[in-house]
Amino acid sequence: MSIYMDKAIAAAGIAGGQTKKNPTVGAVIVKDGVVIGMGSHLLMGTDHAEVQAIKSCIEDPAGADIYVTLEPCSHHGRTPPCTEAIINAGIKRVFYAVQDENPKVSGHTVLEDKGVTAIHQPHEKSEAIYDGFFNHLSRKRPNVTLKSAVSLDGKLALDNGTSKWVTNSESRKDVQYLRHSHDAILTGGGTLLGDNPRLTARIEGGGNHPRPVILLGGSLLEDGLEIESHPNKPVVFTDNIENKKFSGKYHIEYGQFSNGEILDILYRDYDISSILVEGGSKTQTAFIKEELYDQIIIYIAPKLFGRSKHELFQSSFTAMEEVIHLKLTDVEKLQSDLKLTYRRN
Amino acid sequence: MSIYMDKAIAAAGIAGGQTKKNPTVGAVIVKDGVVIGMGSHLLMGTDHAEVQAIKSCIEDPAGADIYVTLEPCSHHGRTPPCTEAIINAGIKRVFYAVQDENPKVSGHTVLEDKGVTAIHQPHEKSEAIYDGFFNHLSRKRPNVTLKSAVSLDGKLALDNGTSKWVTNSESRKDVQYLRHSHDAILTGGGTLLGDNPRLTARIEGGGNHPRPVILLGGSLLEDGLEIESHPNKPVVFTDNIENKKFSGKYHIEYGQFSNGEILDILYRDYDISSILVEGGSKTQTAFIKEELYDQIIIYIAPKLFGRSKHELFQSSFTAMEEVIHLKLTDVEKLQSDLKLTYRRN
Repeated sequence: MSIYMDKAIAAAGIAGGQTKKNPTVGAVIVKDGVVIGMGSHLLMGTDHAEVQAIKSCIEDPAGADIYVTLEPCSHHGRTPPCTEAIINAGIKRVFYAVQDENPKVSGHTVLEDKGVTAIHQPHEKSEAIYDGFFNHLSRKRPNVTLKSAVSLDGKLALDNGTSKWVTNSESRKDVQYLRHSHDAILTGGGTLLGDNPRLTARIEGGGNHPRPVILLGGSLLEDGLEIESHPNKPVVFTDNIENKKFSGKYHIEYGQFSNGEILDILYRDYDISSILVEGGSKTQTAFIKEELYDQIIIYIAPKLFGRSKHELFQSSFTAMEEVIHLKLTDVEKLQSDLKLTYRRN
Repeated sequence: MSIYMDKAIAAAGIAGGQTKKNPTVGAVIVKDGVVIGMGSHLLMGTDHAEVQAIKSCIEDPAGADIYVTLEPCSHHGRTPPCTEAIINAGIKRVFYAVQDENPKVSGHTVLEDKGVTAIHQPHEKSEAIYDGFFNHLSRKRPNVTLKSAVSLDGKLALDNGTSKWVTNSESRKDVQYLRHSHDAILTGGGTLLGDNPRLTARIEGGGNHPRPVILLGGSLLEDGLEIESHPNKPVVFTDNIENKKFSGKYHIEYGQFSNGEILDILYRDYDISSILVEGGSKTQTAFIKEELYDQIIIYIAPKLFGRSKHELFQSSFTAMEEVIHLKLTDVEKLQSDLKLTYRRN
């Protein structure tokens, strides 16, 4: 792993949750072992990371190396191609962590043609970032993150349903940032009507509030729910026609939908490219069994709940080959809690 | 956290599993910001860490600082007091991570009397090491480590009992080192008769093989079990008198014993100061409920097993205040597996 690519990834992270259907990209420019410039693609339509980095240089980037998390683009989109900016700046070598799968791009050949060395330097973390991006480009559906908070023995709640609180305050604060970095937040009717949550991202200084998406099924909305005042009008999927009377306050999608259809509608009609699923055991299990997820984030509390029907995953297997096998990509210690990030294997 | 205390702890770790009822201790000597000597208490009866470190110095330690994981001893035991060696070496300041609870020791007052500054500098990891040591000194029972390998949803096996393998080869190799660092390994009759395990520490270059301890209950031993050839004669606790015919091959402890009594006997009659419990759900749950453990080490595989009766912890609670609440002290990533170390809270 290159320490400069680490820094480029850190730069990419600064824009997390802001670029919508564009990928987050970070870049650093290095000359004689010193970072002389850095940039991040902060908002859709603004300068790409490479251009930001070139503009920020504290000395002439001619002859320098650039480390960028994604292969530089070579086409005119909302902004001029990054390859052009790199060539004009006199940069000598380009290290990129992930190859762009978009055929319009192939920046490395354009660079090589102009005498700039382009080196594909993979990095575990950046693969994880862009898998989601390429997914939504190729599948035309949002990138799906399943989020749970469980005890060390894999329970979402005590057997009687008690779950306040499974995790510590640091984990619960972290969840607010997770919400902030997604376009939508999905939960079931049980959580909506039982807990009356706000479904906002409560971050100091204000955050991006993901649009609430409710899988209401046959249940009926109520007047005065907290999400009525959500800055983004919630989308409700329901097969109970009675809910149509709430269509002033909610987008009502009436019918019987599979989870796959729901994701398609959210992508197509609501411009949602990433969604955080915060549902209970039933919702999580359905998304896992239907393979409609890109990553699973699990907060593990240092607690033993013992026997409980509120299990992380409700299914059953008879052979080791059948079990769901994930890939651990990130571990973070939040006091005695753990935040684990897994991807599909 | 001091980087020098980190190094002292690393030095202590080198002796892990070798010092029996003595604690593992590490020390480094620092002069003008440079580590000029380091030592570890390697075997019972040999030089203590401080003395080893002083002897190893690449320049005169006069005027230097020593960082030691445990407060230096001030009494004549099998070796002369470490305080004497420190004073004679002209060391100026002593930083120690853990205060010795043994009243015969109180090295810091002896040091201060001779003009050496003694500073208690706590460190999270060293507290964890010595809790176990002080436990066995004050409670006269072995330090107990419960070890499990579970799926991400807290299951020890599939519902039909399949558990080959829950974790990856790196985790299973790590377990061999865990065995190596304990005096005894405890398991139940079900595991013994069902799996016929060797219960050795299979480490390249040879390891310390913990003495097998079997909670056999009313079951009957069989001829030709793998543990017959274990380098340390196994101890079998049983209330089935028929097992007495195996007393040539095993130490048979006949009677009905509580887990607490078993630990007492192992400490008193078999010189066992640390024990690794590798039993199944029933054994683990009993030790947890009776609070007969010091640490819990859990290997978590990146797998979802779904519903299964083979749960990590078989108990049930109705309020969040009742649940077992642990403290996470260490996290290690073993490819996609995790090794988590928890202590009692």
